[in-house]
Amino acid sequence: MLKVGIVGGTGYTGVELLRILSQHPEVSIHAITSRNEAGLPVADLFPSLRGRVLLAFSDPATASLDKCDVVFFATPNGIAMHQARSLLEGGVRIIDLAADFRIKDIAVWEKWYGMTHACPDLVAEAVYGLPEINREKIKHARLIANPGCYPTAVQLGFFPLIEAGIVDLDHLVADAKSGVSGAGRKAEVHTLFSEATDNFKAYGVPGHRHLPEIRQGLSQVAGKPIGLTFVPHLTPMIRGIHATLYAQLTAGADLQALYETRYADEPFVDVLPPGAHPETRSVRGSNLCRIAIHRPQGGDTAVILSVTDNLVKGAAGQAVQNMNLMFGLPETLAIDQVPLLP
Amino acid sequence: MLKVGIVGGTGYTGVELLRILSQHPEVSIHAITSRNEAGLPVADLFPSLRGRVLLAFSDPATASLDKCDVVFFATPNGIAMHQARSLLEGGVRIIDLAADFRIKDIAVWEKWYGMTHACPDLVAEAVYGLPEINREKIKHARLIANPGCYPTAVQLGFFPLIEAGIVDLDHLVADAKSGVSGAGRKAEVHTLFSEATDNFKAYGVPGHRHLPEIRQGLSQVAGKPIGLTFVPHLTPMIRGIHATLYAQLTAGADLQALYETRYADEPFVDVLPPGAHPETRSVRGSNLCRIAIHRPQGGDTAVILSVTDNLVKGAAGQAVQNMNLMFGLPETLAIDQVPLLP
Amino acid sequence: MLKVGIVGGTGYTGVELLRILSQHPEVSIHAITSRNEAGLPVADLFPSLRGRVLLAFSDPATASLDKCDVVFFATPNGIAMHQARSLLEGGVRIIDLAADFRIKDIAVWEKWYGMTHACPDLVAEAVYGLPEINREKIKHARLIANPGCYPTAVQLGFFPLIEAGIVDLDHLVADAKSGVSGAGRKAEVHTLFSEATDNFKAYGVPGHRHLPEIRQGLSQVAGKPIGLTFVPHLTPMIRGIHATLYAQLTAGADLQALYETRYADEPFVDVLPPGAHPETRSVRGSNLCRIAIHRPQGGDTAVILSVTDNLVKGAAGQAVQNMNLMFGLPETLAIDQVPLLP
Amino acid sequence: MLKVGIVGGTGYTGVELLRILSQHPEVSIHAITSRNEAGLPVADLFPSLRGRVLLAFSDPATASLDKCDVVFFATPNGIAMHQARSLLEGGVRIIDLAADFRIKDIAVWEKWYGMTHACPDLVAEAVYGLPEINREKIKHARLIANPGCYPTAVQLGFFPLIEAGIVDLDHLVADAKSGVSGAGRKAEVHTLFSEATDNFKAYGVPGHRHLPEIRQGLSQVAGKPIGLTFVPHLTPMIRGIHATLYAQLTAGADLQALYETRYADEPFVDVLPPGAHPETRSVRGSNLCRIAIHRPQGGDTAVILSVTDNLVKGAAGQAVQNMNLMFGLPETLAIDQVPLLP
Repeated sequence: MLKVGIVGGTGYTGVELLRILSQHPEVSIHAITSRNEAGLPVADLFPSLRGRVLLAFSDPATASLDKCDVVFFATPNGIAMHQARSLLEGGVRIIDLAADFRIKDIAVWEKWYGMTHACPDLVAEAVYGLPEINREKIKHARLIANPGCYPTAVQLGFFPLIEAGIVDLDHLVADAKSGVSGAGRKAEVHTLFSEATDNFKAYGVPGHRHLPEIRQGLSQVAGKPIGLTFVPHLTPMIRGIHATLYAQLTAGADLQALYETRYADEPFVDVLPPGAHPETRSVRGSNLCRIAIHRPQGGDTAVILSVTDNLVKGAAGQAVQNMNLMFGLPETLAIDQVPLLP
Repeated sequence: MLKVGIVGGTGYTGVELLRILSQHPEVSIHAITSRNEAGLPVADLFPSLRGRVLLAFSDPATASLDKCDVVFFATPNGIAMHQARSLLEGGVRIIDLAADFRIKDIAVWEKWYGMTHACPDLVAEAVYGLPEINREKIKHARLIANPGCYPTAVQLGFFPLIEAGIVDLDHLVADAKSGVSGAGRKAEVHTLFSEATDNFKAYGVPGHRHLPEIRQGLSQVAGKPIGLTFVPHLTPMIRGIHATLYAQLTAGADLQALYETRYADEPFVDVLPPGAHPETRSVRGSNLCRIAIHRPQGGDTAVILSVTDNLVKGAAGQAVQNMNLMFGLPETLAIDQVPLLP
Repeated sequence: MLKVGIVGGTGYTGVELLRILSQHPEVSIHAITSRNEAGLPVADLFPSLRGRVLLAFSDPATASLDKCDVVFFATPNGIAMHQARSLLEGGVRIIDLAADFRIKDIAVWEKWYGMTHACPDLVAEAVYGLPEINREKIKHARLIANPGCYPTAVQLGFFPLIEAGIVDLDHLVADAKSGVSGAGRKAEVHTLFSEATDNFKAYGVPGHRHLPEIRQGLSQVAGKPIGLTFVPHLTPMIRGIHATLYAQLTAGADLQALYETRYADEPFVDVLPPGAHPETRSVRGSNLCRIAIHRPQGGDTAVILSVTDNLVKGAAGQAVQNMNLMFGLPETLAIDQVPLLP
Repeated sequence: MLKVGIVGGTGYTGVELLRILSQHPEVSIHAITSRNEAGLPVADLFPSLRGRVLLAFSDPATASLDKCDVVFFATPNGIAMHQARSLLEGGVRIIDLAADFRIKDIAVWEKWYGMTHACPDLVAEAVYGLPEINREKIKHARLIANPGCYPTAVQLGFFPLIEAGIVDLDHLVADAKSGVSGAGRKAEVHTLFSEATDNFKAYGVPGHRHLPEIRQGLSQVAGKPIGLTFVPHLTPMIRGIHATLYAQLTAGADLQALYETRYADEPFVDVLPPGAHPETRSVRGSNLCRIAIHRPQGGDTAVILSVTDNLVKGAAGQAVQNMNLMFGLPETLAIDQVPLLP
């Protein structure tokens, strides 16, 4: 049994980790820390966990996370980078669900996140936890930078096109729509029910923190810097990301075959048949990414539709997928639940 | 492995049965029938099941359901009663998720359902599949009448009060609210998104078919006819029933202890601590019924709050609970998933 | 033209007052105050008002509200009671949308609201602003206590039964459901979109502040103290209250005729035909209360269904109705818009 | 007073026309026809209209529409083209909210709509009812082709860029999101509440009927055929369209000034300040189109955000705007209501 710790378990990423890990047959949850809620039974905050998670939140100071095999950080940005080194030195492996280790270029990270980075050397070591591109590295990693929700859906959607070298790399467009849980469980006016329901809006058009992350991932695959316009939107649903991707084709190709081949062995990427339109609810509560490929009117624009559950494949599920890989467990263990529909 | 058949798998009860049964370690799904969709892969209708349910809908005529150990009817009312006898005679056990076998008084059934009953003798034999009141009978039943969604939440909420004999049996009130999935997957104007969202209404106040079913169950426990006002409402959520129950107390009692004792050994009934307000989302996707007990201002009115997921404990989950009991499997097998929150 | 001031215009009651008053032909908005947002153009906070409300929020200290004919308080509880006297003495009439002047029994008010009242004499003078019961007094009032949202829907639903003296006054039940906007525009976790949508729950069952207000109103009509169980619920819609009322009949009566007669001359109370089920969306954005009367299975329980828009008839619309009455304007002026459906 | 008729008043476009026209001071509604609902009081179908629209639906055969000054067709496609000629010859002016007269190229229309056109000559005469481009022609038109909902939001968003000649006309992208009311009031499974809520999906990517309409409008302004990729999506809200438009800039320009100048005199187009993100709810129930202009990271891609209420500016409101223009009434009469927020 793996001994698992969770730092910062009071947000949606935290409760989703708990949902998955409490059903994982090879995991024992050692501690869930929260400075603010120390002492409170976890199930008092999240009634869905009554009878399933019997722990209380513990104070980070006394949680003895150093006794864990692996610690998940489900914290705001800028926390994990201060605690990673001592845990790693104690032999604990780390999966950070925040952004501290995602961007290799420290200057870029510091500009977008508005902080000085505490441990650039660990950024260099960290493995970007997207199994579809980094599976072997993940298996041997001490420190995983778990990808952001938008970057997961967008990169999985663009990879085959870019790997095949058949699109204009200067004018990629990612028009992405997210459920409101992506904004977290903080009390804020703009995500109140009465503000966010029966409403649709773009946000962060001048620049969103997931832009450099996506750009880094796609550029790496392309072998040179790519140009991307990324527009996120808030849509009145709890879970789900729908990325609509546009790319100008510069060469002919059987796009459907390209995607099917690329993802043939991926347990969590499902390439839909031609003409399909994936729905976010078709992956609700699951670790799947479903993708459909279109070329409207046979023109030179490829339209890729990519959907995920932002809290699962976009966060907690992918984190457990990484954990499974790191510890030699079956990759799909505890994250192979059938989506909840309707 | 149990060989299982499903008759009428194109509605919400059907897809929920498939979600649960496809993850059940002791079940092999033999056939899912649909007259209209015969030949269509199940996953084409329900994209959530892609890669998990590989069967196509089969024609009822050729599905050889007689080779199953158990057949679930997820059909409209009035279908199972015509097919039950021949299956039973062939040794197949039956769980009917519709209403055909729920009401013992044939005249009452015929009045509320507007049909002549095809097999009154089987109604007499059928066991009402509410494990919390009928567990032992269910274990040996050939034919289960799976309870309705409202009746499950309302009866579990009222049972302890009535068993204790401490309430006015003539003036019980059940004010119940249901998610829209309770109305099924039929194309109808009043359950369109643009009609049902951002809206709330009562319906069926003059009389709803679940009234005689609840009345029968409560009267049986009371040992005499009870008087109940039952008002169902449609609330803009997909899943969930919230029953708010009112009863006039006729004797003193420690209500909290009463409920905790009554349900101490029930795996799927969770009595909340005093002062709690259960939320429907705390049971989303799970087979749980959570109950809270109130006595506002210490007066003589008990207020019981009871929540379930109408598609799970109110339908498919309870059906699998019954199947597990009938075949000597662990009662919670495949229906012990943690609720999906948020 | 009436010169109108609004104190505390940053909540939902505030924006709704502005929506109505900006379209009122006899009103000129003199000032909208907000300590926190002073200087901010109102339309920057509420984009729906761009081009229609050109004012900025002003500091309460410099807003010269004493130059207004009437001032609306759209503030939290406990604010208006500190500012009312000086405005009244300056000849300004006041409509308080909070609870400061609603409860005549000061001790009861102080218990439920947890504050010492600043001006009990003004409570004695204040007129409870429910035109259907107090129209003549409202016309001559200096100070209006605008009713709460639940109390409006519940009282209008119960009045005819109680006035007729045909129900058991000791066991009235009001099961009420509210849209989330009733909880206001404060940043709180429990009203976040991801907490409140696809969910249903009761709250405040042990005691809600609207209980003493309803009890006072119904007792006044009954001529003696009534017994009421009041259970509010949160339902995932923005606007709307649906009150489901239960009363035991103690005498025969033509209930439909009773209601139709009682409300025959009321411009904002619509008694539906027998058998109807009012929907909250049928009053969305309007000042209407629609009511239907049921007596299920001809028994001795009356079930009354009463719907309003909590922000209009339950708050801002009723406030303008009171203003119209106070200043001799046509009662329906600016609040006779057709509801928005779908 | 204008005598107005409505053909086909049972859908969302119909009820929205009735909402607006019943509050129009210069209109008298002569008849609302419906073959299926003839005889039914309109308010029985749309409870929001109780007390405001006292008419019943009338049979088309006996409705004497020839006595009207203007007739609105709120019918499915392919109806108005069969009835237009005789009405026009009788001196009745026509506003068709369906697509019969929108596409000038008859072959294109017949391909996308799958019908033979009944009156190509009237298509030639018909004026496309987008006042922002055709105001003068509309004033003198007998027959108006009222624009589609997507085309209104997309064209208003693209016009200034195309008129200025500063974008690559071969690779325009319109990623559009619509509320579910855009799919109409037909009973269909895919727009059921339980299918459409908490879900997001694209549809019609291979080709949507609004594509040729948008292409025609933009090509006309461009003076040559433009290339457009148009991807519509269904988002879980009732009303609202959000168009996110992408264009490659081929020349420098002050985009903000360009839009502000272009729409300076338009009563229903609101250009937001730089950096803004319009929300669909900011136009809910109103005839406004709000537009924001972005150029992320100062690159060569312009991102235009354009929102409307699909039932108002995208249908019924624009139809009334056209009527006002045709009959010399103030253009904003009865369609200048403040949006409903929250």
